Order: sequence, then C-alpha cells, then structure tokens
Amino acid sequence: MKAVVFDKELKLVNDYEKPVPQKGEALVRVTMAGICNTDYEITKGYMGYVGILGHEAVGIVEEVNGEDKSLIGKRVVPEISYGCKDPNCSWCAQKLYRHCPNRHTLGIWRKDGVFGEYFTMPTEVLFEVPANVPDTQAVFVEPLAAALEITEQHHIKPFEKVIVLGDGKLGLITALALNAQNLDVTLVGKHQNKLDIAKEQGVKTSLLNDFAIEKKYDVVVEATGSISGFETALALTKPRGVLVLKSTVAASKEFNLAPIVIDEITVLGSRCGQFSPALRLLESGKVDFSKLISGTYSFNDTLEAFEKNKEKDTLKILLKN
Amino acid sequence: MKAVVFDKELKLVNDYEKPVPQKGEALVRVTMAGICNTDYEITKGYMGYVGILGHEAVGIVEEVNGEDKSLIGKRVVPEISYGCKDPNCSWCAQKLYRHCPNRHTLGIWRKDGVFGEYFTMPTEVLFEVPANVPDTQAVFVEPLAAALEITEQHHIKPFEKVIVLGDGKLGLITALALNAQNLDVTLVGKHQNKLDIAKEQGVKTSLLNDFAIEKKYDVVVEATGSISGFETALALTKPRGVLVLKSTVAASKEFNLAPIVIDEITVLGSRCGQFSPALRLLESGKVDFSKLISGTYSFNDTLEAFEKNKEKDTLKILLKN
Repeated sequence: MKAVVFDKELKLVNDYEKPVPQKGEALVRVTMAGICNTDYEITKGYMGYVGILGHEAVGIVEEVNGEDKSLIGKRVVPEISYGCKDPNCSWCAQKLYRHCPNRHTLGIWRKDGVFGEYFTMPTEVLFEVPANVPDTQAVFVEPLAAALEITEQHHIKPFEKVIVLGDGKLGLITALALNAQNLDVTLVGKHQNKLDIAKEQGVKTSLLNDFAIEKKYDVVVEATGSISGFETALALTKPRGVLVLKSTVAASKEFNLAPIVIDEITVLGSRCGQFSPALRLLESGKVDFSKLISGTYSFNDTLEAFEKNKEKDTLKILLKN
Repeated sequence: MKAVVFDKELKLVNDYEKPVPQKGEALVRVTMAGICNTDYEITKGYMGYVGILGHEAVGIVEEVNGEDKSLIGKRVVPEISYGCKDPNCSWCAQKLYRHCPNRHTLGIWRKDGVFGEYFTMPTEVLFEVPANVPDTQAVFVEPLAAALEITEQHHIKPFEKVIVLGDGKLGLITALALNAQNLDVTLVGKHQNKLDIAKEQGVKTSLLNDFAIEKKYDVVVEATGSISGFETALALTKPRGVLVLKSTVAASKEFNLAPIVIDEITVLGSRCGQFSPALRLLESGKVDFSKLISGTYSFNDTLEAFEKNKEKDTLKILLKN
C-alpha cells in the first residue's frame, strides 16, 4: 500500500506492506488524516521514531480480528495510544493508555501511524464518529481531546480568567474548546487573521503587542509551540495560578525556576485526552474548525503538504485518500 | 542597637536605630534567630535587598502600638510577611499575606529583618509559642511551616509514595514534617550523617548513589538547593505525579520542558506556610530539630556564623542575643 514513512528522511513509499490486524485489532481504511506539529518534530528527530507517520485520522473499519464484528463498516477515529493490557497495569486499569509504560502510540512510538491507506488499532481505542460530524471536523478530534484534557486535569472555576497564549492551531483549538465550555477565555497571539477565527466564535482575543503583561490570570495555557512562550506565560500567571504547558518543544532553553517557587505557580504538563468528550463537543456543533484548514492534499502529494505545513501562517493541513 | 545589615556587603552595625512600632505593630526583643539559605542568597544579590537581614526568630513582645496589649510579655514567632490590608486585596482577605503584591517581608523585601536586638511586626502575624517548645525548636517554625505548606497546596494521599530529595536542612525538615503526618516518605541525599538524623525519627532514607532512579514516585520534593536537583527530581516523578519545587535557587540552567508535557507532570512551586499548623506540630513533640543545630553564636559573632554557615555539611546556625 502507499504510505508516508519517516526513516531519517520523509518519503512516500508505494509498496509498504498492508497491516494485518492482530487479535483484538481492527483494520481501518483511512479516509482523511491531519498533519500535527508533532509529526513535524518527529521529522527533526523527536522520539527517534522510524515508520509510518501520523496520528490524526478518520477511517472506515474494514476488518476486525475478534468475536465482536460490530465495528465493521463504521466510521471511526483512533485514540493515539493503547496500553499493555496487563491486568496489573494501573494505567491501563484507568484507561490512561497514554501513560502506560509499555504503550504503543500511532506514528510516534512502536506503532505505524495513519499516513497510509490503512492502519490497525485495538478496537477499544476506536470511537465511532457521530453521523452529523463530517470527516473534515472529525479529523480534529485528537487535538480537541488534547485541549479538553486540561479540564480533566484541573478544575477551572467559572469565575477564573483564562489566557491561551499562541494563535497557531493548538492555541486556536484550545481557546475554542475552553470557550465552548462557557469559561472566560482570552486568546493572545501575533496574527490578527488567526485571532479572528476564534473571535468569530465568541472568544475574546488580543494581539500580544496590545496586551498588558501582568501577573493576574488564574490559568495560562502555553500553546505557542515555541520555547520562549514559557516565560511570557509565567509573566501572565498570578501567584498560586496554573500555567498549563501544552506545547511539546524538543528544544532546551535556560530558565530560572525561582519565580515558580516565589509565586507558588503550578506548572501543569498536559498532553492527550479522552475522545468521548471531544466527540460530544463536535456533535453538539459548539465548535467549528473549518476555518483552520489551510489546505487538503492527496496522500500522493504528502511531501508537498509537509512543505506547505512548514510555511508561516499555515494552520491545519489535511490529507485525503 | 546592634544589627546585622546587608548593603552590598554583610556588616555588624552597633548604632542602628531601634525600630519604633507603627500603628498595629509590636516591638519584639529577639532572643534567638536562625540563618536560612535565603539569607545567604541575599548576600549574593537575591531580591536586591538592603537592610537588616533575617526572618527566622523567636522573641519577647515588649511594646504594642494599639489598643490590645495582650501580647506584651509573650514569647512569639513572626510569620515573615504582612500584607497591604486593603479591604479589596483578595490575598489579605485570605490571610495569604505572602502573596499580597504590596507585602512587606522580614529581612527580604521592604522590611528590616530579625538579625538585630529588636524588630517590629504587625500583631496579626505574631504567634505565641507554646510553653513546652524551647527557643531552640521554636526558631525552626518558619522552615517547618514552609514544609507543611506542601500539604496545604496539594493533597498527598496516604497510599502515595513521597521522595524528599536533598538532605540539607530544607530536605531534613520537610522529610521530618511529612513523616510526622504519617505519610510514606523516603529522604534521599548524599550524606549518611545527615540522613541518619531523619532515620532516627523514623524516616526511610537512602544515599542517592544507592537509590534507583525510576519514574515511580507520586510526589517528589526538590529540596537540594541546587539547580541540578530539578532534573533528578523529574527523573523520579511518575507520569501525572507532582514535583514540588522547594529550593529557591537564584541560578539559571538550560532545561527541556518536553518531559513535563509528555508525562503530564505537575510542577508545584512551594514557598512559605502558615504558622498555626507548624506550632501545633512542634507542641506535639512529633518532630525534633535539635540535631539540625550545627552551632549557636552570639549576635556579636554573626559574621563568623555566616562563614560557618557556608561550610559544607553545616545545617542550622543559630544566633543568640
């Protein structure tokens, strides 16, 4: 089958072996996939991953290796990790597969990803897409779940002031997701055209240059994708406030940790989330990601799509089989 | 009066003006004081402070400028900060004076400290010392309150595994304080003689070299006082665990923040705490800090005491009027 493989360099392969579902797994034919910044980080060496890239996808289940065949023919989205299923694994017992030390993660760690004609995943991490949610919205379920993860980890109270820093796709999706939960969110970024996407859906927005940097916000989400965003986020977080680290940045930078101690800041690392609440939010129609799509490419044109993804001002690039 | 002043350099002054209690303040005659690492950091430029150093003290109230004179003659310890008392200040309303943006902090920020014959503080931040607690234990109330602050900020569950990293006085006091609350604490450090102080009071201990560095602890308290302790602490914290930053280190270091995101770690900055629980613990006799005292000096010998404080293996140095 065709597949987009990273092995020192990114390449389109035409004769990759079609995956065979193992016991408990389903074979999914990919209809649409999305390029994430993590994919781009992997092409720079993050995680040392070799294999088919990609972890954001929508597809149709074609086969199930197992007794319950009910998923066959269903349109699904895959959570990105599955666990070891050892009955003694406390992470798997909580369905926190993403923290199982022996996990496999689509296109990131020990599991071929979704940038191909097919992928396989265990049926328990495949979620049926509600009928009213088109592929072009469903493909956002993984970053949307990651945005909602913040509210799984930390109770943001209705009277608290939330800043989302960064108007790239991570920041936009996070701001839209939190705003859809009736929280008091302001998105702060550098690009008026991107801020406007959130503004049209009722999010308060401000250009960074126009925004007073004061330590007065209860929750500040760092979603700039840049290592320097941390210090700006810290400068906005009130004493005893919460700075949510959302960007996974492979780079290092020199930091002084003393302000975290002095102001008793909570720095909360936040990664992937559960799909059910994200699918519920998509089904409700309270968020709309169509204006985040900067281009849709055929899988045959994936290398071109990655070039487009690198361009300044690009938001989500989709791949279509 | 005699006072130990930092103004570019540390000096013993014999003719410092005796402080006059302002409205609502008491005048306290210092009987005993302790040198803290923060004092040492200040002599290296931390906070840009100029004035009488010191914030750990026990003393006798001699005067009160106010109607309620009941504190006169009482043996007290001062919390280190007082707030603006503006009725609109949410921090002061919660008695979180240490986060009031217009606070004054003994010997650290806009308020002369306790390394003199007298200091003044508002009566609401002076706490009477229980009769059974000698000055040599009461002088530890401030770092003990800082240790207990962890349990004010974060609920450590009884089944969780806690590591305290660093066997200096901060680490020892933290390990003893948490252990006294029946938590499952292991103190990890580099000095067998210091570890033994905690071991004698029932704390599990291990030399760092003998300790397996695995990401399996629920709560890891970084109390090494060294900028490099952060990375060791991170390597011990389990996914979704809590890394408590206790050391205030003025230095910077290059860090990669990605592991915080990937493992969804909570980094919790933790500073000072309330005195009431600390005094209750001292009164109970469940902690004993006498073996942490490395020397007791007359105020006249403060410069010598500071030299001793710099020596490797020194724990708490006390000053006596």
